[in-house]
Amino acid sequence: MVDILRATSAICTAIHHGVGRMIPVAGVDEALDYKKQGFLVAAERNAIKLDGFDFGNSPYHFMDEALKGKSIVISTTNGTQAIAAASDAGEIVIGSFLHLSALADWLHLQQKNIIVLCAGWKNKFNMEDSLFAGALYLELEQKKGIVSHCDATIAMAHLYDKAKDNLYDFLEYSSHRHRLKNLNLEADIRYCLTANIFNTIPVYRNGAIVNQNAVIAEMG
Amino acid sequence: MVDILRATSAICTAIHHGVGRMIPVAGVDEALDYKKQGFLVAAERNAIKLDGFDFGNSPYHFMDEALKGKSIVISTTNGTQAIAAASDAGEIVIGSFLHLSALADWLHLQQKNIIVLCAGWKNKFNMEDSLFAGALYLELEQKKGIVSHCDATIAMAHLYDKAKDNLYDFLEYSSHRHRLKNLNLEADIRYCLTANIFNTIPVYRNGAIVNQNAVIAEMG
Repeated sequence: MVDILRATSAICTAIHHGVGRMIPVAGVDEALDYKKQGFLVAAERNAIKLDGFDFGNSPYHFMDEALKGKSIVISTTNGTQAIAAASDAGEIVIGSFLHLSALADWLHLQQKNIIVLCAGWKNKFNMEDSLFAGALYLELEQKKGIVSHCDATIAMAHLYDKAKDNLYDFLEYSSHRHRLKNLNLEADIRYCLTANIFNTIPVYRNGAIVNQNAVIAEMG
Repeated sequence: MVDILRATSAICTAIHHGVGRMIPVAGVDEALDYKKQGFLVAAERNAIKLDGFDFGNSPYHFMDEALKGKSIVISTTNGTQAIAAASDAGEIVIGSFLHLSALADWLHLQQKNIIVLCAGWKNKFNMEDSLFAGALYLELEQKKGIVSHCDATIAMAHLYDKAKDNLYDFLEYSSHRHRLKNLNLEADIRYCLTANIFNTIPVYRNGAIVNQNAVIAEMG
């Protein structure tokens, strides 16, 4: 599941920096209910942190050592819709460019069919999630020899191949990115488009996103 | 509306060669009902003309002078689904590479919002229809200055730009094309991917596809 700008990039960043659980909820009201129960909560509208919340959706908000082991509720409409759509999946893993290669390695080890579920934008195709799907497929194809016969996957791999030398400039031409650009979120976007910063694999289990290694440790 | 391999390419070819009306129907049984009423009918399964039908779905079947002014019923599952999906449109026009530039000119003259409805393959994205959408947008953008802020449109324009120098080879990597290739339909595919063979604009009116010029002549 992927929502590059910026939900899954923020979630992966938080988990990598030691946050214990990221709990995705659909709306601000649901997040506020958690706030009343003492949870830390993240939500924003038009890319600005909402009053009464602890964080917005910027990945930079979740790089704080003080958050280690904490549970954070994050309001993400596209993300929760995507999780609902993936409810039949054997496993839901969270995608971002930040851990692209590690994710491809992990997916290959699972030996299962893979669907890249792009959260998109208002139920429509968006450029950055689709580029990620292409990038992930190229990793799997070129390094693991996995071959897709799905036209959408192949098309997105071609698109990523065209865009990869400068993803940021390529996205200049994407409508969603224009929206964020207007709000001076250039630094967030540049960060979210950076490949292979870490190897942490966040997975969705029982309503929360956690570190796959922590799951293994628990089971072990 | 577009279904490059091969429904809309065949329909456009037929209309260009003087066929009076192409009547799209969803299934073979419905086509056979028309046959009993004396209509010429076209249908195929696995790219082979069905017994009892006059034509398959190859564009080459409709280049016959003897068909001038005739009505032909054509069975096309993807095509009829797409027409149903477009039922709210102010006008439905049929797309193909064969009349790409003329179509862009005509669309520009309408001064209306444009949706490129790709028939796809089994309700999924397919490569050739999406490439056509990109090609059509590039015509509209580069020659008419029309700008889209739709990520899907922009992505397909990038894809077409990458593929345009050899569409045929590019489609080697598309699953639908593999299906046709196995059936030795190379000549059909090469034809369907050829741009700007004619300027005829086929439109859908009252259950049939007709030549836009004929509509104007009737109204005039």
